[in-house]
Amino acid sequence: MADRIIVDWGTSSFRAYRFDAGGAAEVRRTDGGILAVEGGRFEEALRAAVGDWLTPGVELHLSGMITSRNGWVETPYVETPATLADLAAAAVRRDIAGGVSLRFLPGVSQREPSPDVMRGEEIQVFGAFRADESGVAVLPGTHSKWVRVERGRITGFRTFMTGEVFAVMRRHSILGRLIPEGAPALPGAFVDGVRQAMRPDSPGLLGDLFSARSGALLGVLAPEEIEERLSGLIVGHEIAGAVALGWAAGRVVLIGEAALCGRYATAFEACGVEAVPGPADAAVAGFRRLDALE
Amino acid sequence: MADRIIVDWGTSSFRAYRFDAGGAAEVRRTDGGILAVEGGRFEEALRAAVGDWLTPGVELHLSGMITSRNGWVETPYVETPATLADLAAAAVRRDIAGGVSLRFLPGVSQREPSPDVMRGEEIQVFGAFRADESGVAVLPGTHSKWVRVERGRITGFRTFMTGEVFAVMRRHSILGRLIPEGAPALPGAFVDGVRQAMRPDSPGLLGDLFSARSGALLGVLAPEEIEERLSGLIVGHEIAGAVALGWAAGRVVLIGEAALCGRYATAFEACGVEAVPGPADAAVAGFRRLDALE
Repeated sequence: MADRIIVDWGTSSFRAYRFDAGGAAEVRRTDGGILAVEGGRFEEALRAAVGDWLTPGVELHLSGMITSRNGWVETPYVETPATLADLAAAAVRRDIAGGVSLRFLPGVSQREPSPDVMRGEEIQVFGAFRADESGVAVLPGTHSKWVRVERGRITGFRTFMTGEVFAVMRRHSILGRLIPEGAPALPGAFVDGVRQAMRPDSPGLLGDLFSARSGALLGVLAPEEIEERLSGLIVGHEIAGAVALGWAAGRVVLIGEAALCGRYATAFEACGVEAVPGPADAAVAGFRRLDALE
Repeated sequence: MADRIIVDWGTSSFRAYRFDAGGAAEVRRTDGGILAVEGGRFEEALRAAVGDWLTPGVELHLSGMITSRNGWVETPYVETPATLADLAAAAVRRDIAGGVSLRFLPGVSQREPSPDVMRGEEIQVFGAFRADESGVAVLPGTHSKWVRVERGRITGFRTFMTGEVFAVMRRHSILGRLIPEGAPALPGAFVDGVRQAMRPDSPGLLGDLFSARSGALLGVLAPEEIEERLSGLIVGHEIAGAVALGWAAGRVVLIGEAALCGRYATAFEACGVEAVPGPADAAVAGFRRLDALE
């Protein structure tokens, strides 16, 4: 069997994995997300990163924003309910010079009860849930995803703009200007923020956000606490929204980068939600399952 | 009686009113909010705007962010419950050249159930509510205020970062980048956004925000609808948060600039909240009541 290569190519990161016949993997990571690739020169970027892997007959699977309108080859969305086999069937093939075959995986969309889309997270979800398993996968990030899986099918999901709202409020709002530069953040304020978001008398995110400013003005919040408080409030409101919709009632599996998952694990604990960690590299696990299908 | 002058001097606007002995008023407005005044030269800015009014013996009342740490003279906060007489008693006097006497009014603060502050809105609230009246004043804006009044006393309030969250998301998020430049916004999407925010199955603001993006990607939302949808979602979540806390149960009085109040009136109607308009210039009405006290 020839080498198999999988590429998880997102907005701001590139990760490629090569498996030899024995199944051992080699990994390359770069900061070359699709936003960093100028003028649509994705093939050039791919060859720069893993050119020595691109031997004749090799097959690559690509997933993530590289398959979006702003990526290399736009693939359709598979609508929910979606299985891993549905993803494989809807992949778009493109051959490039040197006998290299690329397969761009689709994203997943949902129309009801509210329109939603994902690209890249679905392969991680299929890596965390086997064909007979059910539960909810939580993938924190710029656009956090809560994905419901029923007996191995993605039946619905919800995206929360948690990471992006935090980033724009941190950089561009009056709250960001109150955060002292260079001072170490006080992490205890994160849990306080999560707990405030979960309180039945919370006025919602817009009201809780201002309390980080007025708390600082009135001296009940130290300037060094504002950043973690802001983060806790926003993460807490993501969890509060999902809990209110019943998304945290069953098995919750937390998937993603270790530091961010650690923050969410802390937040879940503060909310009384039991969450278990998913596989360390859920995307690789998902690609392996995809490989086994073919 | 000498002329009386009142100055409503906020972060981004300056408004001065002069009353003669007969009570008739002359108004001057500039864009010279405190952020536009360089190097703390507030006296210079005041004289540039209304120098010809500053005759010997004249008395000015100043309210708004000009009384904050970043303003001219920082005044203390009066804690809730607060009456108009409490404001008058805590004003800070400062005399300047030419026999001109300045009185900087305090802001109002609250410690429980959550820390909150205001500077400038309180005089508008006292303009909209007479000494024996009760209800809730809503003052939409960058930092929207909901202020509870019981028999003429401000007994509690809540600030929502509505306008600021809209502005930073409009300018700095992926949602802003999806809004076509130069195309006229479709206003119907505002009410749709408000209604979505009020739905019992809303996932909260963070989840609803993303639906503006995925709706556009899936073709259920026109690009020209995104801006108003975003505005409606954010205003709707302010109202939903306040309604959930019981703030809209009694008499609701809407105070502020006409165009913005018009949007809130539309939103309130969509939410089934009955709101009545406050006086056209609530700050002036508040200052008149203050004058009558002295």
